[in-house]
Amino acid sequence: MSTVTPKILPATASAANPPLMIGDLLSAGVRTAGDNPIVYRDHSRHDYRRFEERVHQLAHLLTAQGVQAGDVVAVLDWDSHRYLECFFAVPMLGAVLHTVNIRLAPEQILYTMEHAEDAFVLVHEDFVGLLEPLAARLPRVRGYVLCQEAPREVETTLSMVGEYEALLAEQPKRFEFPTFEENAVATLFYTTGTTGNPKGVFFTHRQLVLHTLSEANLFQAKGVELLSRDKVYMPITPMFHVHAWGVPYTATLLGATQVYPGRYDAEMLVKLLVEEKVDFSHCVPTLLNMVLSTDAVSSKRVDLTGWKVLLGGSALTQSLARRAWTFGIDTRSAYGMSETCPVITIDILPRHVEEADVETQLPWRCKAGLPTPFVDLQVVDTNGQPLAHDGKSVGEVRVRAPWLTQAYYKEAERSEELWREGWLYTGDVGSLDEAGFLTISDRIKDVIKTGGEWLSSLELESFLSQHPAVAEVAVVGVADEKWGERPVAWVVPGNLNEPPAAEELAAFMQRFVDEGRLNRWGVPRDIRIVDAIPKTSVGKLDKKRIRREL
Amino acid sequence: MSTVTPKILPATASAANPPLMIGDLLSAGVRTAGDNPIVYRDHSRHDYRRFEERVHQLAHLLTAQGVQAGDVVAVLDWDSHRYLECFFAVPMLGAVLHTVNIRLAPEQILYTMEHAEDAFVLVHEDFVGLLEPLAARLPRVRGYVLCQEAPREVETTLSMVGEYEALLAEQPKRFEFPTFEENAVATLFYTTGTTGNPKGVFFTHRQLVLHTLSEANLFQAKGVELLSRDKVYMPITPMFHVHAWGVPYTATLLGATQVYPGRYDAEMLVKLLVEEKVDFSHCVPTLLNMVLSTDAVSSKRVDLTGWKVLLGGSALTQSLARRAWTFGIDTRSAYGMSETCPVITIDILPRHVEEADVETQLPWRCKAGLPTPFVDLQVVDTNGQPLAHDGKSVGEVRVRAPWLTQAYYKEAERSEELWREGWLYTGDVGSLDEAGFLTISDRIKDVIKTGGEWLSSLELESFLSQHPAVAEVAVVGVADEKWGERPVAWVVPGNLNEPPAAEELAAFMQRFVDEGRLNRWGVPRDIRIVDAIPKTSVGKLDKKRIRREL
Repeated sequence: MSTVTPKILPATASAANPPLMIGDLLSAGVRTAGDNPIVYRDHSRHDYRRFEERVHQLAHLLTAQGVQAGDVVAVLDWDSHRYLECFFAVPMLGAVLHTVNIRLAPEQILYTMEHAEDAFVLVHEDFVGLLEPLAARLPRVRGYVLCQEAPREVETTLSMVGEYEALLAEQPKRFEFPTFEENAVATLFYTTGTTGNPKGVFFTHRQLVLHTLSEANLFQAKGVELLSRDKVYMPITPMFHVHAWGVPYTATLLGATQVYPGRYDAEMLVKLLVEEKVDFSHCVPTLLNMVLSTDAVSSKRVDLTGWKVLLGGSALTQSLARRAWTFGIDTRSAYGMSETCPVITIDILPRHVEEADVETQLPWRCKAGLPTPFVDLQVVDTNGQPLAHDGKSVGEVRVRAPWLTQAYYKEAERSEELWREGWLYTGDVGSLDEAGFLTISDRIKDVIKTGGEWLSSLELESFLSQHPAVAEVAVVGVADEKWGERPVAWVVPGNLNEPPAAEELAAFMQRFVDEGRLNRWGVPRDIRIVDAIPKTSVGKLDKKRIRREL
Repeated sequence: MSTVTPKILPATASAANPPLMIGDLLSAGVRTAGDNPIVYRDHSRHDYRRFEERVHQLAHLLTAQGVQAGDVVAVLDWDSHRYLECFFAVPMLGAVLHTVNIRLAPEQILYTMEHAEDAFVLVHEDFVGLLEPLAARLPRVRGYVLCQEAPREVETTLSMVGEYEALLAEQPKRFEFPTFEENAVATLFYTTGTTGNPKGVFFTHRQLVLHTLSEANLFQAKGVELLSRDKVYMPITPMFHVHAWGVPYTATLLGATQVYPGRYDAEMLVKLLVEEKVDFSHCVPTLLNMVLSTDAVSSKRVDLTGWKVLLGGSALTQSLARRAWTFGIDTRSAYGMSETCPVITIDILPRHVEEADVETQLPWRCKAGLPTPFVDLQVVDTNGQPLAHDGKSVGEVRVRAPWLTQAYYKEAERSEELWREGWLYTGDVGSLDEAGFLTISDRIKDVIKTGGEWLSSLELESFLSQHPAVAEVAVVGVADEKWGERPVAWVVPGNLNEPPAAEELAAFMQRFVDEGRLNRWGVPRDIRIVDAIPKTSVGKLDKKRIRREL
């Protein structure tokens, strides 16, 4: 990178140059869609104007409880209108929103809350029992607010200052929010790796605003059209997980109707999808699978035609995409990770694909997609040299963009493992094709090194998943004296009573060898039929546990 | 504004936080729309990939001529593919693009080029004769590049280094652009006021990127849908005028097909609209009127159904909007000025209006519109107090946004007249209604102060324009002993051979008095039928000259 001296001119004394602030996203939504509803399950419903009022009331509530700029405020709640209010009120005060991953083990939750230095906590009554034994070890917490659906007494040892709705109702409806620098931290949450403690990832107002503007542009693009003032949005990625991919911010900017489903219960999700006429959701493939497998959907008793689902977190398989399409559901992929805010690629299809039939589109819609505007993405070899865009050269994906976490919170060493020479190393292995589309083939640590070659565990999973009797599959590498590593497959049959024979599956895999798409030694000799595959707290295949259990 | 101390966390040593750079807009367009064409008149056509190559070649060309970061590069050209290339290559080098207003008088052009300290000039052959007598007084200019449609010898005293296409062809196709801070100045141009020399307005990479992201969001919004990869765009606002409202940047980000019409010739504009199937243009009302008045359009020999036109610069009258609608043309208004980059409001209609019939929509589509996201806009009284959103209270419009010029270039005093206490004062008078829609009623200096009341010259023009025999109208205030000021109207009849009588027009105005929409003393007693009304260099009514000629 060369160094140059461009022209920098001073501002006149009385000029203002407003920083990029999350609060402006809310103002914009209220301006264009003041009447649109924010829905919480079958429980509550109010419009954007009231949403804004409630954000102001929450700011009063928090301030009255001594929350100040720079403080960390933790939330343990299901996806709700309350959580959405915290997405805005907490950062708009200059405080930091810690979205606690409630699926972690209690000791891990304690670790994250201590490490984050949480000063105040909003907790749903479902998690009160979880927090009570931990509270003594969280001396920094000055108070707890109880979140619940219906007002009822909750006996607890936590130092509760009151119930969310009751406290909110007491507050004035207009708060004078401060303005401060756009590089102030707005959010903080923890991501679990294969080893060690969870790592804290943080984002600033500037980063979230830029990520939101980017998402809003992509989600409105012709042909994509996931969000607008006229669309209904419901997340099925938890709000504690990378702010539900930042989409609540984007939906608010664009004034979309927002439906929050609370705890993810398949029947409730389907009920809301149908009754609220949801147009757009995002989730990991496992959750889409769960929705499609409900009685109501699989029996076609309800109609989900026109529902658009953005998949991420792990690769969408062609078989799941095809299955969704048979229900009239439009799927599209995006790629990113906690550290990237998260969206850095999305399937904006090349025009000739967009105009083609479903079978042509399917493989494209399962790729990670095209790097989004302002994202610089490379696939590099082990020496950091960019590889050819030929759809074959496989290496690690590294990235630059204006919205990547600038460090792990209070983790100097691991921060420097994530960032090297100005690039964030994703730990994902993939390739770029001639059209610039990224395909993720594996996590670097899940790649199976066999006979001097790299075998992608994801690709093996994709091949196996195409067998009609296979519902779910995981492939991991295990140590092998002769080959270094060899692949082992775990398979959950679609019908547990009629599982396919391992030999039949191996024979099925031979087809891909014959087609030249798989090396001979890539066919797993060890295929095990199981009832279920362990998952991580965010619904991904838990390969660490699978390896342990082998 | 209260002061708080939010949490600021350091980045790890190896992290990168890329600045917002104009070059990223180009990369994004090439990624999603590499095949889409950039068209210049009926003269040339190439795709986005070649567009990017040409930008790199232009950077080599300029560098070879000694242009460095911080230098100012002037362009005098009609709207062209070349100009578009300068929009990118010059700022991407860290240099400043001076878009010279070629409609100014030669002495004013000289003033702006001297004041801007232009170091290098690209000049279309049509303007060589204009520059020759000025060149001796522009000693800073190190060289000129000739832009022309067909290679032919041009005899000139300018120190030409060569012809654009010939020079470009010699350059390598890949340039390593530098990265630098986002607050670097990217563009500079001059705006003419009522008094004094033209004032230099400048924008940074950051401001242009944010303005572009904002425009891209608005222009893709459901119902608006002005731009996408599948749309064809042609500006009819000159590229020297606030970078054609920034739309070439937005069109590039979104990968739209772009058509540049060269010199604005009504027949050529219509030919391109039809042959290139243009979906979207923007212009001042006068130019829309010019297009509608061509033989081809007015006789309906060509069909412009579906053409979308964004109007700004001066208010769109209902009669012109209605006329456009009879041709199937969809009009929409936006508002801004040179100092605001420019877009700060746009007609995103309230839903009940969007769903209503044309007659209901028309008045809304002639309003300035809703402040766009990240724009804070107020209408204030003479004490700087915000007025009620009642659609009636009239005051000066002031604004804050992340993309407003931070000063007039080298004009300390006038910069502090523009900016007061953190607000940019637009010099426009207007009102906000209950829906938050802005209506501009006048320039502060054009308001007619009569009998202790403020009369809006624009409103009088709008009323008069509704008379079927009126083609164009201008109203100014002149000094009056009794009333302070009184209105005088200039009227251009639709048919010069059958002009309406002044008495008939006065009687027509009485109707608005009877309807309670106009005060009795607002009816101009002095209505003059004229052949033409003087215009400024950007096509607005030149009221300064009208007052002088009265």
